[in-house]
Amino acid sequence: MLVLLKRGVSEATAGDLATRLRMFGLSVHRTDHGGQVRLGAVGEGGGVDWDRVRTWPEIESVEHIPVPFKLVSRVYQPHDTVISVGRCAIGSRQLAIMAGPCSVEGEEQAFTIAGAVARAGATILRGGAYKPRTSPYSFQGLGEEGLKLLRRAADAHGLGVVSEVMDTQQVSLVARYADILQVGARNMQNYSLLREVGHAEKPVLLKRGLAATIEEWLMSAEHILSQGNAQVILCERGIRTFETYTRNTLDLNAIPVVKELSHLPVIVDPSHGTGIRNKVAAMARASIAAGADGLIVEVHHDPDHALSDGAQSLYPEQFDALVGQIRTIASVLGRQV
Amino acid sequence: MLVLLKRGVSEATAGDLATRLRMFGLSVHRTDHGGQVRLGAVGEGGGVDWDRVRTWPEIESVEHIPVPFKLVSRVYQPHDTVISVGRCAIGSRQLAIMAGPCSVEGEEQAFTIAGAVARAGATILRGGAYKPRTSPYSFQGLGEEGLKLLRRAADAHGLGVVSEVMDTQQVSLVARYADILQVGARNMQNYSLLREVGHAEKPVLLKRGLAATIEEWLMSAEHILSQGNAQVILCERGIRTFETYTRNTLDLNAIPVVKELSHLPVIVDPSHGTGIRNKVAAMARASIAAGADGLIVEVHHDPDHALSDGAQSLYPEQFDALVGQIRTIASVLGRQV
Amino acid sequence: MLVLLKRGVSEATAGDLATRLRMFGLSVHRTDHGGQVRLGAVGEGGGVDWDRVRTWPEIESVEHIPVPFKLVSRVYQPHDTVISVGRCAIGSRQLAIMAGPCSVEGEEQAFTIAGAVARAGATILRGGAYKPRTSPYSFQGLGEEGLKLLRRAADAHGLGVVSEVMDTQQVSLVARYADILQVGARNMQNYSLLREVGHAEKPVLLKRGLAATIEEWLMSAEHILSQGNAQVILCERGIRTFETYTRNTLDLNAIPVVKELSHLPVIVDPSHGTGIRNKVAAMARASIAAGADGLIVEVHHDPDHALSDGAQSLYPEQFDALVGQIRTIASVLGRQV
Amino acid sequence: MLVLLKRGVSEATAGDLATRLRMFGLSVHRTDHGGQVRLGAVGEGGGVDWDRVRTWPEIESVEHIPVPFKLVSRVYQPHDTVISVGRCAIGSRQLAIMAGPCSVEGEEQAFTIAGAVARAGATILRGGAYKPRTSPYSFQGLGEEGLKLLRRAADAHGLGVVSEVMDTQQVSLVARYADILQVGARNMQNYSLLREVGHAEKPVLLKRGLAATIEEWLMSAEHILSQGNAQVILCERGIRTFETYTRNTLDLNAIPVVKELSHLPVIVDPSHGTGIRNKVAAMARASIAAGADGLIVEVHHDPDHALSDGAQSLYPEQFDALVGQIRTIASVLGRQV
Repeated sequence: MLVLLKRGVSEATAGDLATRLRMFGLSVHRTDHGGQVRLGAVGEGGGVDWDRVRTWPEIESVEHIPVPFKLVSRVYQPHDTVISVGRCAIGSRQLAIMAGPCSVEGEEQAFTIAGAVARAGATILRGGAYKPRTSPYSFQGLGEEGLKLLRRAADAHGLGVVSEVMDTQQVSLVARYADILQVGARNMQNYSLLREVGHAEKPVLLKRGLAATIEEWLMSAEHILSQGNAQVILCERGIRTFETYTRNTLDLNAIPVVKELSHLPVIVDPSHGTGIRNKVAAMARASIAAGADGLIVEVHHDPDHALSDGAQSLYPEQFDALVGQIRTIASVLGRQV
Repeated sequence: MLVLLKRGVSEATAGDLATRLRMFGLSVHRTDHGGQVRLGAVGEGGGVDWDRVRTWPEIESVEHIPVPFKLVSRVYQPHDTVISVGRCAIGSRQLAIMAGPCSVEGEEQAFTIAGAVARAGATILRGGAYKPRTSPYSFQGLGEEGLKLLRRAADAHGLGVVSEVMDTQQVSLVARYADILQVGARNMQNYSLLREVGHAEKPVLLKRGLAATIEEWLMSAEHILSQGNAQVILCERGIRTFETYTRNTLDLNAIPVVKELSHLPVIVDPSHGTGIRNKVAAMARASIAAGADGLIVEVHHDPDHALSDGAQSLYPEQFDALVGQIRTIASVLGRQV
Repeated sequence: MLVLLKRGVSEATAGDLATRLRMFGLSVHRTDHGGQVRLGAVGEGGGVDWDRVRTWPEIESVEHIPVPFKLVSRVYQPHDTVISVGRCAIGSRQLAIMAGPCSVEGEEQAFTIAGAVARAGATILRGGAYKPRTSPYSFQGLGEEGLKLLRRAADAHGLGVVSEVMDTQQVSLVARYADILQVGARNMQNYSLLREVGHAEKPVLLKRGLAATIEEWLMSAEHILSQGNAQVILCERGIRTFETYTRNTLDLNAIPVVKELSHLPVIVDPSHGTGIRNKVAAMARASIAAGADGLIVEVHHDPDHALSDGAQSLYPEQFDALVGQIRTIASVLGRQV
Repeated sequence: MLVLLKRGVSEATAGDLATRLRMFGLSVHRTDHGGQVRLGAVGEGGGVDWDRVRTWPEIESVEHIPVPFKLVSRVYQPHDTVISVGRCAIGSRQLAIMAGPCSVEGEEQAFTIAGAVARAGATILRGGAYKPRTSPYSFQGLGEEGLKLLRRAADAHGLGVVSEVMDTQQVSLVARYADILQVGARNMQNYSLLREVGHAEKPVLLKRGLAATIEEWLMSAEHILSQGNAQVILCERGIRTFETYTRNTLDLNAIPVVKELSHLPVIVDPSHGTGIRNKVAAMARASIAAGADGLIVEVHHDPDHALSDGAQSLYPEQFDALVGQIRTIASVLGRQV
């Protein structure tokens, strides 16, 4: 339920009301909007007499949130969530440009690419240290060593770091080095992992699953928010269809849909979304034109020798040219890189 | 096979060579590129001794076209096909903006909308007179009366006309009034209809089927080109996936893919591609950013009373604002409205 | 609307009531069930005052049919439709076994296969004379010559004939030779063709489209029934998914769903449904176990040299063994071959 | 690579050869077939000189396994894997019938259902104690308490137990009570979890993901086998398509495909595969007719009050009748319940 307090109630009163609701066994979350305290009371709480609650003197209104994702919805929070990571304010007028290699492979690679993407305008460095691979016999990532390299390369160029976490037991380790914890498409409904990152103090980048509906994707975000971590960035990365020419089918319809349903920022991964280097720039432009809050792009200076996903990585020069195009398109929507 | 003639061969020789190839039972099509005659020889012709043909003195080379769609491919014709309809050159640097109601409903409606879309910058008026409807009990269109209205409304505002043809027996009738014959998504593999429009003297707008791969879509275009009509405009309008929030899933990945594989122009229908009015503009912008050659958009001045597809039709003012945004995005790709 | 007449009304009265309903601009269809006349009144008919109609003395009840497919639904007709073709009663306790080559290729082929499938227990011979082919350069079928061969081969072995019709202009020709007119998956929403076969005097086999929902499939059947032809056989033949190992994904869930929603018989095509010879028998068995009313199977005595679909055609011996297995499975459901 | 040893080599020699291959950094697995030792050598091992290995005196042949799933393939192991759990030999001529409630809800529920399914012919009791739920606010299962109840109820009726494990940290706990560890569809590509159950001493039931290709499913099984646990049971439970009438689209094509590609047993879950009680029996019959090695079915004595999935649970009487039908169908394939 969404409980709106009367304007001007004191902090003490607001806190007291939240406590009273919690005593019903509900979990209570708070967001402020337009000078008003909004409490989202979620959980089973079947026994609450809401008509009674409605009569409490400090309460303006109590309404049902008519979607299954409660804390994620614009009903609960009408204004956009903005998540600050280093120089970047994700979800603001400034677009979030994240770029880097698929996997961290070594010091020279990490520093070379970090420098290139920083010069082009990226503010977050991406790179995998733990890699979910279809085959158990493929390169599985450098692990903690990779995280250290990523952190050092990012720091050298003033970038933030986003890196994937595959397992509840990795969360605290990855959080030590990365600024944003990525939950991959294959783990979008790994609820134990969602609960764990829901308790982390770092923002979470939640990729959409290959066959996830938009509603399921938002429900997975709800799992994270329900644990107390409200800093979730959604990432569309392509769904699976019958088309075989491209690796996935990028569903850009999802961008305006998510922006309407939720206050969370949503970015696009055109690298996995197409799987083909010379299609990435077109879809990156399209993503921004559709209203995405940013991009996460694979960039590699020597993609032919990349240990993973070389075929879909941009050369640094291509990435640089792309950011230039993005700048103009962003202006159409009143945004900037 | 692609047969390249030596530069400088006379017209008579070129014609003679085409005739000799036809005597093998092949169908021979011609395109000129860079001052060179290129002959596409298609059909079964299993018995042709191509090593022999390769030695004919006027022939520079003979090569296999390594894709199943032959005349449609960039191997056969490296340069973009440009199709002129009234003031519009579809496939050129100028974007083709087609707009109008889903169905023609009456004189006032047709003229009002034609005027509005013309003022906003459209050059082609869309409108259905024969409607493919899931239910036999729904409005099936005004038929020839609708075509007449559409023609008059378009003429009054200097627009071309595109309208759907559902049946081989309708082709000559629709061609009498429309400048472009539309083949709908449900008929993309209606091969009798493709053959018939392949003999028409009018350009054909070929919508992608709901479950068609890009290759199948191009193969359907090949059916048309193989009959002699090279004026085909492809139109992405969304595919069917598991997502239920939007009517269809617009596959914009298909735009850069088609532009690489084929010389034919490709446009996008964001109205059917989303099915939701307030998502249309975002996806129209994204389409142009992805490199589409134009748009076909449903516009209605009174969508709440439209006889079909009101929920996805833009108001004229929304369409006008959209064209303004498109103009800036087009400039990023060196194009214009 | 479903209008139930009181038991015992005379034929004259029933005819008179139908006429009165038709005067409202409705189309009226009739089915009798349990000694009661049921009138299905379909069409736009927005102006009818049904509360008034409900008071007519001969009328027992008037109820809305709560699905978009009206005449196709079990609400309109509670009992199974049974369609007689030669020795076969499709939709009865006896399973309908249709078999034969993908394409008719010549006299020897047609007669050899007809003999083999008849001996194994088939009662209907399948075979294409007009073939919808993805490529315009593939074998397109023998046309009328093929129909003649098919008819003669079937007659020689006491079989009925089912063959595909691709175009409104072919309907009367195919109906001259075939007992059942097949509408292919690609034409499931070719509404002009549906209307035309809706006026034919022959049963229609309506294949499900590759991306058609069950509701759309039933709506396409409704197009046929609404024109007066109530003899429609539905055929599940696989839908398109992301799976590439099999040609299509056979959706057997559709069998019990269709049997509940509709009174029309539904059969399965495991040949197109899998696309792989050594998977056909398993899925044919599964189809019958799921409750299908029959099968349509591709059989060829020399599949390596078939002009189409050889890879999914059974050898006659395999087909013979399959029918034996089917017999036992059918007995579990109280049915027989 | 598949390394076949000469017949008659001693155990000591076989062990020695495996050790020599391991020294190349490979992981070596062994299966015996037809009196011959077969070694599957997997891993990166790029540097191995296989032509040299081929000349070792005890080696009959070395061949590349031409599929990405190595230990899972029939090339590595030609004979069927049979997994013994209590009275049940999964993958043998005897079908494995697993049944029980979606979630364990309490003592009376667990014992009532266990008794009913045991009487009907089931040998394994299913039941969830940890439930992956789309909503964080839904019932999440009874946890260890549920496992204890399940174990006691199963023991009371001579049944084995299968229960889901959602997280690496739950594996040892669930393994204490269950005979088979279930990895759910949403976790099919949770590689950390696959690795963990790959080290467990219990068989694993691996459900197919909603958008997983057959190859990806087998690759996930390969993750488990590569860790040393060869006891994997595959379970088809429906994929996601555009169809909305049924909860999922059961892909029975997958059954004969998997039986050809792999030696692992494969069963079907018709409850999740349809999501509709009165469609479950039809699809259960179809599964066995298609060649599945067994079923896992949701059964509940009071489904209207079930805490999860009541709408797709069979009543005990329905389950009993179903097992009777299965018996006859199984006989067609030379199998028995």
